[in-house]
Amino acid sequence: MCSDIVRLRKRGFARERDLVKKLWEVGFACVRGPASGAKTRRIFYPDVVAIRNGRVYVFEVKTRKRLETIYIDRRKLLNLIDFARRAGGKAFIAIKIVDGVSDWRFIPVERLEKTSSGMFRVTPEIYKHHGLRISDLIADATGQRRLLDF
Amino acid sequence: MCSDIVRLRKRGFARERDLVKKLWEVGFACVRGPASGAKTRRIFYPDVVAIRNGRVYVFEVKTRKRLETIYIDRRKLLNLIDFARRAGGKAFIAIKIVDGVSDWRFIPVERLEKTSSGMFRVTPEIYKHHGLRISDLIADATGQRRLLDF
Repeated sequence: MCSDIVRLRKRGFARERDLVKKLWEVGFACVRGPASGAKTRRIFYPDVVAIRNGRVYVFEVKTRKRLETIYIDRRKLLNLIDFARRAGGKAFIAIKIVDGVSDWRFIPVERLEKTSSGMFRVTPEIYKHHGLRISDLIADATGQRRLLDF
Repeated sequence: MCSDIVRLRKRGFARERDLVKKLWEVGFACVRGPASGAKTRRIFYPDVVAIRNGRVYVFEVKTRKRLETIYIDRRKLLNLIDFARRAGGKAFIAIKIVDGVSDWRFIPVERLEKTSSGMFRVTPEIYKHHGLRISDLIADATGQRRLLDF
């Protein structure tokens, strides 16, 4: 059980590193949050932060084997939004469907659906219609096209 | 020997957390870089990144028991400057003299002295004359006073 958790966390870090690597290669400065227990403290660290030209993008990272509805913990989401607000940046759920074909998609938190029980989720429809690509983030960061226009 | 290194690293992380906590309390979004081996890879993570209103401050953290000349590794410094350039931010050496009295001081990398052997250093004089305080970073981030004016 314990080794399962360690294995899953290691895989999670590998995915975050993959996102960092891709964003780094196209010119963003990136930081992965520290691994150990940061989220249990008063200070919240996002999974990944990417910055370019003073434009800040804050990510909660989710990976799935197939496209399905993904639920986002309310507390984590509020922390993510608070972090983005402090930074003067934008908050996203970064999703990687690990099917060997799909690349990263970024869902602006404003697009999340609120359930009747107060949870938040990304449905496959939201993923398909509102998921941004790395090229969209580049266009926003370089001022070619604002994310609001997407 | 090995346990000494672990102990020193743990103490280093505690100092970084102290800096993050202080900056967080005055409104910055902060991230500590991940602990494990990040700097040996192609992607560089600074010790601490603080952001507010889209203003980005990137730190290499140094702590000393007393005020003395501090040497900065050339490779680390260049990486720090590259990171700040990508982010559109400013790079600093964050120094804490652990004497129970001194608070954090931030030396803009432009103030570092280059030695004849190509190393970089912060002398006690640089620390005293060019070390900024947390209040200076706040003033810069909130647009009250630009760091260039200090």
